[in-house]
Amino acid sequence: MAIRTGQEYIQSLRGRNLKVYLFGELVKEPVDHPMIRPSINAVAETYDLAVREEELAAPMSKISGKRVNRFLHIAESAQDLVLQNKMQRKLGQLTGTCFQRCVGMDALNSLHSVTFEIDEKYHTNYHKNLLDFIRKMQEENLVIGGAMTDVKGDRSKAPSEQIDEDLFLHVVKRTPEGVYVTGAKAHQTGCINSHWIIVMPTIRLLEKDKDWAIVGAIPVDAPGITYIYGRQSCDTRSMEEGDIDSGNSKFAGQEAMIIFDNVFIPNNLIFMNGEYEFAAMLVERFTCYHRRSYVCKTGLGDVLIGAAAAIADYNGIPDVSHIRDKLVEMTHLNESIYAAGISSSYQAQEMKSGVWLNDDMLANVCKHNVTRFPYEISRLAQDIAGGIVVTMPSEKDFRHPVTGPLLKKYLAGRKGVDVENRMRILRLIENMTLGRNAVGYLTESMHGAGSPQAQRIQIARQMQLGYKKKLAKSLANVKEDAEDTPENSDYFKRVFKLR
Amino acid sequence: MAIRTGQEYIQSLRGRNLKVYLFGELVKEPVDHPMIRPSINAVAETYDLAVREEELAAPMSKISGKRVNRFLHIAESAQDLVLQNKMQRKLGQLTGTCFQRCVGMDALNSLHSVTFEIDEKYHTNYHKNLLDFIRKMQEENLVIGGAMTDVKGDRSKAPSEQIDEDLFLHVVKRTPEGVYVTGAKAHQTGCINSHWIIVMPTIRLLEKDKDWAIVGAIPVDAPGITYIYGRQSCDTRSMEEGDIDSGNSKFAGQEAMIIFDNVFIPNNLIFMNGEYEFAAMLVERFTCYHRRSYVCKTGLGDVLIGAAAAIADYNGIPDVSHIRDKLVEMTHLNESIYAAGISSSYQAQEMKSGVWLNDDMLANVCKHNVTRFPYEISRLAQDIAGGIVVTMPSEKDFRHPVTGPLLKKYLAGRKGVDVENRMRILRLIENMTLGRNAVGYLTESMHGAGSPQAQRIQIARQMQLGYKKKLAKSLANVKEDAEDTPENSDYFKRVFKLR
Amino acid sequence: MAIRTGQEYIQSLRGRNLKVYLFGELVKEPVDHPMIRPSINAVAETYDLAVREEELAAPMSKISGKRVNRFLHIAESAQDLVLQNKMQRKLGQLTGTCFQRCVGMDALNSLHSVTFEIDEKYHTNYHKNLLDFIRKMQEENLVIGGAMTDVKGDRSKAPSEQIDEDLFLHVVKRTPEGVYVTGAKAHQTGCINSHWIIVMPTIRLLEKDKDWAIVGAIPVDAPGITYIYGRQSCDTRSMEEGDIDSGNSKFAGQEAMIIFDNVFIPNNLIFMNGEYEFAAMLVERFTCYHRRSYVCKTGLGDVLIGAAAAIADYNGIPDVSHIRDKLVEMTHLNESIYAAGISSSYQAQEMKSGVWLNDDMLANVCKHNVTRFPYEISRLAQDIAGGIVVTMPSEKDFRHPVTGPLLKKYLAGRKGVDVENRMRILRLIENMTLGRNAVGYLTESMHGAGSPQAQRIQIARQMQLGYKKKLAKSLANVKEDAEDTPENSDYFKRVFKLR
Amino acid sequence: MAIRTGQEYIQSLRGRNLKVYLFGELVKEPVDHPMIRPSINAVAETYDLAVREEELAAPMSKISGKRVNRFLHIAESAQDLVLQNKMQRKLGQLTGTCFQRCVGMDALNSLHSVTFEIDEKYHTNYHKNLLDFIRKMQEENLVIGGAMTDVKGDRSKAPSEQIDEDLFLHVVKRTPEGVYVTGAKAHQTGCINSHWIIVMPTIRLLEKDKDWAIVGAIPVDAPGITYIYGRQSCDTRSMEEGDIDSGNSKFAGQEAMIIFDNVFIPNNLIFMNGEYEFAAMLVERFTCYHRRSYVCKTGLGDVLIGAAAAIADYNGIPDVSHIRDKLVEMTHLNESIYAAGISSSYQAQEMKSGVWLNDDMLANVCKHNVTRFPYEISRLAQDIAGGIVVTMPSEKDFRHPVTGPLLKKYLAGRKGVDVENRMRILRLIENMTLGRNAVGYLTESMHGAGSPQAQRIQIARQMQLGYKKKLAKSLANVKEDAEDTPENSDYFKRVFKLR
Repeated sequence: MAIRTGQEYIQSLRGRNLKVYLFGELVKEPVDHPMIRPSINAVAETYDLAVREEELAAPMSKISGKRVNRFLHIAESAQDLVLQNKMQRKLGQLTGTCFQRCVGMDALNSLHSVTFEIDEKYHTNYHKNLLDFIRKMQEENLVIGGAMTDVKGDRSKAPSEQIDEDLFLHVVKRTPEGVYVTGAKAHQTGCINSHWIIVMPTIRLLEKDKDWAIVGAIPVDAPGITYIYGRQSCDTRSMEEGDIDSGNSKFAGQEAMIIFDNVFIPNNLIFMNGEYEFAAMLVERFTCYHRRSYVCKTGLGDVLIGAAAAIADYNGIPDVSHIRDKLVEMTHLNESIYAAGISSSYQAQEMKSGVWLNDDMLANVCKHNVTRFPYEISRLAQDIAGGIVVTMPSEKDFRHPVTGPLLKKYLAGRKGVDVENRMRILRLIENMTLGRNAVGYLTESMHGAGSPQAQRIQIARQMQLGYKKKLAKSLANVKEDAEDTPENSDYFKRVFKLR
Repeated sequence: MAIRTGQEYIQSLRGRNLKVYLFGELVKEPVDHPMIRPSINAVAETYDLAVREEELAAPMSKISGKRVNRFLHIAESAQDLVLQNKMQRKLGQLTGTCFQRCVGMDALNSLHSVTFEIDEKYHTNYHKNLLDFIRKMQEENLVIGGAMTDVKGDRSKAPSEQIDEDLFLHVVKRTPEGVYVTGAKAHQTGCINSHWIIVMPTIRLLEKDKDWAIVGAIPVDAPGITYIYGRQSCDTRSMEEGDIDSGNSKFAGQEAMIIFDNVFIPNNLIFMNGEYEFAAMLVERFTCYHRRSYVCKTGLGDVLIGAAAAIADYNGIPDVSHIRDKLVEMTHLNESIYAAGISSSYQAQEMKSGVWLNDDMLANVCKHNVTRFPYEISRLAQDIAGGIVVTMPSEKDFRHPVTGPLLKKYLAGRKGVDVENRMRILRLIENMTLGRNAVGYLTESMHGAGSPQAQRIQIARQMQLGYKKKLAKSLANVKEDAEDTPENSDYFKRVFKLR
Repeated sequence: MAIRTGQEYIQSLRGRNLKVYLFGELVKEPVDHPMIRPSINAVAETYDLAVREEELAAPMSKISGKRVNRFLHIAESAQDLVLQNKMQRKLGQLTGTCFQRCVGMDALNSLHSVTFEIDEKYHTNYHKNLLDFIRKMQEENLVIGGAMTDVKGDRSKAPSEQIDEDLFLHVVKRTPEGVYVTGAKAHQTGCINSHWIIVMPTIRLLEKDKDWAIVGAIPVDAPGITYIYGRQSCDTRSMEEGDIDSGNSKFAGQEAMIIFDNVFIPNNLIFMNGEYEFAAMLVERFTCYHRRSYVCKTGLGDVLIGAAAAIADYNGIPDVSHIRDKLVEMTHLNESIYAAGISSSYQAQEMKSGVWLNDDMLANVCKHNVTRFPYEISRLAQDIAGGIVVTMPSEKDFRHPVTGPLLKKYLAGRKGVDVENRMRILRLIENMTLGRNAVGYLTESMHGAGSPQAQRIQIARQMQLGYKKKLAKSLANVKEDAEDTPENSDYFKRVFKLR
Repeated sequence: MAIRTGQEYIQSLRGRNLKVYLFGELVKEPVDHPMIRPSINAVAETYDLAVREEELAAPMSKISGKRVNRFLHIAESAQDLVLQNKMQRKLGQLTGTCFQRCVGMDALNSLHSVTFEIDEKYHTNYHKNLLDFIRKMQEENLVIGGAMTDVKGDRSKAPSEQIDEDLFLHVVKRTPEGVYVTGAKAHQTGCINSHWIIVMPTIRLLEKDKDWAIVGAIPVDAPGITYIYGRQSCDTRSMEEGDIDSGNSKFAGQEAMIIFDNVFIPNNLIFMNGEYEFAAMLVERFTCYHRRSYVCKTGLGDVLIGAAAAIADYNGIPDVSHIRDKLVEMTHLNESIYAAGISSSYQAQEMKSGVWLNDDMLANVCKHNVTRFPYEISRLAQDIAGGIVVTMPSEKDFRHPVTGPLLKKYLAGRKGVDVENRMRILRLIENMTLGRNAVGYLTESMHGAGSPQAQRIQIARQMQLGYKKKLAKSLANVKEDAEDTPENSDYFKRVFKLR
């Protein structure tokens, strides 16, 4: 029976045998843990949206022949990629946080073409394995987490060169039925609230790194897996009474470290196994999808702009010119991110396997702006909010018989504004700029899908200086100049493609 | 007989009876004036491109039923708008300057829907007039300049409030055959090298401004028109011997002031006449197209990035990390502009008249980035170029028997680099960052299609703070708050349109 | 007996009768409250520094004729102001947080000249009152908090226009012995750990606001005062076991709302009483000192740059060029702040009362950079730190028998780096960019001593456009132009003062 | 007889036997060449200022025992360095361009300590030579140019490794009376209008580069010297009739390439000869002075801000909030530069030779901001100016009987504004942002005294990461960490110096 609603999804997570550690204790039932629950709520919203807005979030899939959640859908057109972005922005608006399902979606889509191309070269069976897996996921409507980022140890060394081989996840044993893997994946958003995890290598591999070239699907509760839950700024506010101080009491993100100790992957769930030269291709295509998925942050930006506008209104100065101007600047930056994402999706191309891949240059441009603009939007939101955003007393003081009335008296804004509402909006701004969802809105915007330098490297690879030098030399009448070596990027082919 | 090639176009400009003043003299034949010719060459390139790359630059038109130059084409789909952008970038790459035809294209497209909607309200005949005019232009393949920007006088006053009524172009006499107009249009790019000019109001008009609500087509050599050619930085270098010091000897832009003294427009060439309340709509739609047309500057950016890469190579340090990093930054900024333009074109909608209009918010975001990023790209280009970009002796010194050999000896770069080539690239960088084409790449990027504040106003109109406040209040559990007044923007409807 | 050391200072705070509310409870002994204590430690450091580095932090005072803590010292020269800045940077380095004593210092210094000038006009006795008070403070070596920021209510209305008169602190009763005041001061750094508070008006006042024109000194435990402690990001981590997760376990800032209910000020402790026209002067001089006091943030910047450098080293990539370049950028921004502060102090002038006042334009420039650069430094620190800065499990997990060893294995950096040390530095970066001290390093940098717009207004007042227009007109040979109205700023007089 | 006034100075330049090439011709009398004269006028202003404002520009010198022009003065205190900055800002305001004498001043000051320290090591006589030379210069009141920047050839190679040894100036012959040097110096501001030139090496030298380690004084008209005048943007406008189009008709900068062909330097004018290890010291101290000398650009900034304010006024919108806000931003950036310069001068230290050297870190911070902020100030000036700044017709059209009246009619601004005045201010803005003085205000700001990367390297050398890491580790309770290697910078010693 397929899961349909958010409620059914939450129900499906109960009673699993997950080993999750948090604050030095094994968590009994993650679903009921007040610090974990908001991240589950965020994923639940991805189910409810698919019910409410089918066209946006539940397209028809050629694979299963039925409507499926878009997070499980393989992009069949550029338009499909554009609609991913629109869904991402919508969910960002609805949750104000990371809803944690993009990694899985982007993993499936990138594996679609990569497995096809491995099979083409080696006559392996990975693409069929993948399609079977996708079909099953679509039919049961499950959540897939993608686990890519290894813990990495010494950043200047390759996987096989590390003192401890396990610092990158790798195959430790091979049997006729499958393989056993050991290692750890860091910063895993949306793992404890997933049903399945796909492990993938995180960097370009060489022949000596063959055992690290493993991709496969694993149930989240497979034997040998341990989760250690990551701390977030202000995380324990979710465990306090009341719903004001947390800022966004319903939704939050989740990051855990996943430790794999001899975890089994059967043959039919393996999508790469030793074909090390395809690791780079997988990483590049995955990050190509994923860097553009950061359009989700424009949804969060919409929320934060709204919060800033609301507090200016509560303070009685919504139309002061410098406030207005800052709201315009926030909007401008936010839409600059959106524009880069949409254009990347739109400027997509079809891969041999039939899946569509968005434009890589523009995806990197999108993500690179995401490593800058949310910080500036956040700074401007704090500017508009005023100092009270970090000095406001607790909800408990607000509910207290002595201090409550004092706070209601002295935190008054313009006439007619309810003080509690003012506090709520201030706490939301704190939440998104310093607190729990600042983790997602800021730091994850910096490092998710690759840190800024990773985008710069990828932009450098595609900037086609040779082509551009020719343009300049032609206009400057430079003659008989040495030819540049041919470039391996086809960015301008895509730019000038007429379709 | 339709014009086909650039050469034929240049021929078509000869022997007209234009009154053009430059440096206090009447210009005999603008085509042969060394300071004017580069701007004519740039337009000629728009003809040659249409011959060479039909798909890109010469689409089929429903109006004339034949292939036409894209600058005369009415957009029949979002894809048509995207292709405008691609053609604009290509022409920017080929000319390194403003090719001066976008205003005409954007004027025709915006008038298509506006005339349709005036007719709908007033049962006038403007739309048919316009279609007839377009058909004729397509058949003869002519260049149209759009003349919008009035000289404006006191910026704090409306047209009818100015001390001198002529400070905004207006109807001074009406006859059964048509109207007579007087006034002046400033900063007109591509007028002297056009065949026709369309005059349009430049701001929102009130009832008392009725006489200023005039739109019509006028041949460039109509009686009563005087052109005064504008100076550009380093303009006279085009009049010197040699081709190095001008930096880009073949191509440049052109701006003139056009003075209309009782110029006649016959009825069949009038597209608005007194319907003052449609002036704002025309301005908004025109700037919507035109602000996204600034994608052309990414073509210039490509040239400048190429020039910077070339000079780094000539200096022997192409792979130094800070040089590389600056080239990446330049590329990132350049593609951020492109992305905003493309996404605006793609997120288009069909108007009642059948023409497609690109997204207004994203068009403003595009142009607003254009008022910032080319300045930073230019700054980085100067950084990479080194001080020699502004201290290099003249070509004449380079050709001189005494100083020539000294310069060849002392301006040597890395081994194997021809000194003249190095000089040429440096002059191109000077040309684009301080010289003649800096006018187009920088200052026109600032003010063309509206100064930065105009974009901020337009972004403010569409930022839907009410919608965003609701998102924030929902997540912060704000209850029973006063409702905001409804907003007149439909930006988020377009964002979440599923097509 | 004067307090000497930090320990003696802490002892002096015990057993007072303070009414402090926190999380809905009356705090028994603030000194022993784990969430409050770090802010007390920070102030204690200001005592210990004065013991360790007399020249820097304990100058000779003309008032008491002895060495006093610099925070109680009246600046007797420009050099004294410079040394304030140096002490502030040092304390920022030592504590990594706001040490909370600058407000008091800047209040005393600004009152020195303002009381003198009121007396001069009205033959009042305020200056003597102030000198007596300062002498007493110096002799006992006490901590003074300055309470300026009222809660303000509707930001578009003056004090006397508010619905509730108490939204700005004001005199509610006058007796022969003194006055009684009611109201509330928000965001009070360093009040609970002070011995005395000086209340001051927060904005320009008009005649109708006379009752709001009150300045006086009050013991922190005076009858009628209630403190409500403000929440900070991650505040409760100080209440958890262990010392890692808090990031900076020893030092933090403190903000509380202070509510005054009919609090008495005797005549000899009153420094302004109804002379409303001097409120603006006091605010301007206070903010002039205080905006330059934000040089302290460069000390925090030093810590954060050091933390970023340390984590890069632990990760094995201290010399990668982009990391290096980011550390340079952080340093450049940090020193730009320092430079503005020092130059403001150096370009000081002597006031009629004998106190020295630093340059106001440069003080505003200093603070305005503080509202920008720490955010960028913080962003770059997060960039260098990597995603682990927000996803790292808790210290409890690190101490747990199952998860501890896993974390030690998988959070390894380069060879030889202790994992716990790596965690500690990451937590410090979290602390300063999102956590408890981000409140001081970021949001207080934004709003303390006035929000950005307040600096812009003050810069506008002093920018002497008339003077500058004359320079331009002279070079452009503009003749017979209308004279500008005379300007009331003397900034350029100070710039060109020869001393 | 000492020169006194600007007029006398100009007279002193006549009739020399200089070989100056410009546009492929030998210039007969540079003083009377319309393109060269404005740069001579700028230097003349340095004489007149010394007459008008003795305290600022003509201090008492210990060397000659008399009042001397500050450009010939050796700094005897930190205050002397501060006053250099104030004089520089003043001259920037008065000329709106580079007045070309700072290189000489900074060369003399840096040689003062370097010659002293060479003598100390090698018992040479350089310091006495230098003092004699300075005394003579002071007595005759002459202009000294400093020639440092070699043409450099392949930037990746040392002087002795270049294909052509002459690409760095070096000794080609030694006789008992002195040495002969050959080579070329690029971008020499203020050489043709100097009386003497001091040649200096431009980079760190190794033992094999010994012959390149030469410093000495040479009369500008010494046999063997050839000057080739560099082109500047819009340079030939100075040769046109009228005084409007040039923007700043009186003042401009000057850059020439100086070619030395076997030029003789007698022993008593040699200040370094083979002591290669002191080349780096000289470059560092010279750039330390010189990077702070860029405070001059704040004077140009004052002019440009004034011009922007004037044009806003002429357009009728001086008080529109976004205009006002941009003027504030321009001022803020301009004063941020000033602050860094002043603080560097103030935080100076005395050298062994008795000369004072400003703070190196802050000097680099100052110059680094100069490579950024003038570009942004310039961008904002263009924003305020409007498009007319680059499209305005020529002065000749303005004087023409047909077009003149048309332009006066149609370029009207607000009531009462003279159109010619409006044109003049627009041309000044063009001059400073694109034209002749943009060369000095922008590109020279970028590359003069070292390109941005040179400052970053110097900041990196002094950022004391080891010291800062210790601060961070102390606060994070990091224990038993490996010690960092000791650092060779003493920046923080200077910061915390108590004087």
